[in-house]
Amino acid sequence: MTARNPDGPGDDLDKKTIALIDSIATRVRDSIVQGALPEIEMPVRNLANVTYDRAKGYFELGDERKVRTLTVNTARSFAQTLRLMATSRTMVQNDDFATKREVYYISKNWGDCRFDEQAESDAIMDDIEAMASVHGLSREQLRFYPETHGGSVAGRLTVIDRNPATGEAIEVDCANLGSGAYSIPRSVEHLSFRSEARFVLAIETGGMFQRLNNHRFWDTANCIIVEMGGVPTRATRRFVRLLSDKQNLPVYCFVDCDPYGFTNIYRTLKVGSGNAAHLNRFFCVPRARFLGVTPQDIIDFGLEDATHPLAKSDIKRAEDAMQNDPFIAAYPEWGAAIRQLLKMGVRAEQQALAKWGLNYVIDEYLPRKLANEKSFLP
Amino acid sequence: MTARNPDGPGDDLDKKTIALIDSIATRVRDSIVQGALPEIEMPVRNLANVTYDRAKGYFELGDERKVRTLTVNTARSFAQTLRLMATSRTMVQNDDFATKREVYYISKNWGDCRFDEQAESDAIMDDIEAMASVHGLSREQLRFYPETHGGSVAGRLTVIDRNPATGEAIEVDCANLGSGAYSIPRSVEHLSFRSEARFVLAIETGGMFQRLNNHRFWDTANCIIVEMGGVPTRATRRFVRLLSDKQNLPVYCFVDCDPYGFTNIYRTLKVGSGNAAHLNRFFCVPRARFLGVTPQDIIDFGLEDATHPLAKSDIKRAEDAMQNDPFIAAYPEWGAAIRQLLKMGVRAEQQALAKWGLNYVIDEYLPRKLANEKSFLP
Repeated sequence: MTARNPDGPGDDLDKKTIALIDSIATRVRDSIVQGALPEIEMPVRNLANVTYDRAKGYFELGDERKVRTLTVNTARSFAQTLRLMATSRTMVQNDDFATKREVYYISKNWGDCRFDEQAESDAIMDDIEAMASVHGLSREQLRFYPETHGGSVAGRLTVIDRNPATGEAIEVDCANLGSGAYSIPRSVEHLSFRSEARFVLAIETGGMFQRLNNHRFWDTANCIIVEMGGVPTRATRRFVRLLSDKQNLPVYCFVDCDPYGFTNIYRTLKVGSGNAAHLNRFFCVPRARFLGVTPQDIIDFGLEDATHPLAKSDIKRAEDAMQNDPFIAAYPEWGAAIRQLLKMGVRAEQQALAKWGLNYVIDEYLPRKLANEKSFLP
Repeated sequence: MTARNPDGPGDDLDKKTIALIDSIATRVRDSIVQGALPEIEMPVRNLANVTYDRAKGYFELGDERKVRTLTVNTARSFAQTLRLMATSRTMVQNDDFATKREVYYISKNWGDCRFDEQAESDAIMDDIEAMASVHGLSREQLRFYPETHGGSVAGRLTVIDRNPATGEAIEVDCANLGSGAYSIPRSVEHLSFRSEARFVLAIETGGMFQRLNNHRFWDTANCIIVEMGGVPTRATRRFVRLLSDKQNLPVYCFVDCDPYGFTNIYRTLKVGSGNAAHLNRFFCVPRARFLGVTPQDIIDFGLEDATHPLAKSDIKRAEDAMQNDPFIAAYPEWGAAIRQLLKMGVRAEQQALAKWGLNYVIDEYLPRKLANEKSFLP
């Protein structure tokens, strides 16, 4: 049952992954054979080694590299790095995968180089991942999957997957799941799509997603709805990105009107995050735009008495974003919106629209917003 | 779009819900007409008003009642109770629903009886819910839905839902979702099922669910797998309960071997929780049994070096359970298992089985356990 792919890796990315691992391993062995200390070179992963280019659309890893040389002090982490790469290679070969937690447990059979804590295996996995990213390979291609999976999807979309046992195509019609929804798997690389939808609506809360799904908003609006459930997981971001790329679809974001919604949820979806810069190129959604709730919406839709005062942490987050976030800095519209919110001193949740009736959001808010897509924040 | 059900409530439970609300409202009005102070009677919701009967299988609400009388002090909460009941009635009529957060926002248009905080609306919703539960009606029938929705489902199961717009049946084949899964909706009352499966496997972690799904364990084992994602949400518990009842299926629980897994995740799934006793009758899964990971499994499957020491909080939770939890008290097997764990001084996660290889759980652990269902803990 474990050898699902006896003929070896199925596609070009798999071949590339194995070739990369083999070339690093070969260099290490050659050094040893020649009596030299083996080295592995990896990108430095921190904000100082990050660049932001508005045209490119995501935080990008810079050129700085660190070198892990085999010494008495690094013997353990050097061995762990090689063993983890070997684990990855086996998984690619078997078309299998491991969660970060499982990777940690696999090492329990490695004798002296077992990981004592998951933080250790995570750090080395991040290093390998950063190394692979330089060659255009993501963590998912190394077969390391995150624990958390994605949000739910409904609407005018057919997801084309495959039966892992037989390889035969499986089609999931996301317009035909009733009040349920399609749950995004941990890895989405192998998925393809068919859709006539006009856009993707990425929604912060599960409650709002359920409302739009139960009322089949996606049918009327000819769209695909995605539940992010707060800051979207990697699987969700990658799913939306692939959907946007492959189907040439714009992505509209519908989240709470607060600094967390702007700079954590939306910003992460659109351009990625600072501490995982080697991943952003795969996970960002450059075509994302911010539908609402905007500070101006609070006025335009009469939500003043359904707001809450900004907490100290909201204000701090907003000020931080204006000073330090290269994404916010790149768009004056965002600076203006955040200043407006700070001046109003309040925040509003997307569910605050229920003040005007449960389905005001469907009957009024979204249609009015969608009629004026140019007003969306960048 | 809001009036999805213009002919009024569709089924008997809806009629019963409306009749209950009407009868309470009528009594209140009659009192006022007669010049008397109106009263609403509700069950007392606390542990002192709870009974546990092993044969019945869940914590049950006792007979104690409290009376909310209209006085100067209670005018606001009395009015809020009536308005919330009216909101519920409208939602039943329109076949609509509201999350707890939305209910809070709806009140923003109620003038003086608006809720200042969600805790207020939640408490009154709980009262109405407890009142309704005495008549066999759950919160979902009142159309109040929780924010959180459920886990994912895959395997040999067809879920039969309906198109909310046309009423026409929609079938979701959970064996045909590829690496994805069926995401349980917030309300599951209207679902029906078709299945030839032998059992339901309820799984604690998303990582393990994904492994079993990707390797189509449900195909080999002829079962349905459900991801709980920690303590299962109400929707997940209700879904598993309905599935177990309607299809006459046993439910096997596969969670971490620690006091939290035993007394929070498993116990909540099987018999419910103490602080929501009025709900347990709807949400408990009496046919649930504990497959593993048991303390004995740590020995039988050689996991000793993939364990972690029990934390202080684990020990406290275990001791509390043995002293105060009527469910643990009712089953000597559980007392013995917890004592064994305390003696060993360690806990083991379900992913610890990866120590023997990523798919040891599929190839060895689960088949060996399932061959001896009588060894499951009650």
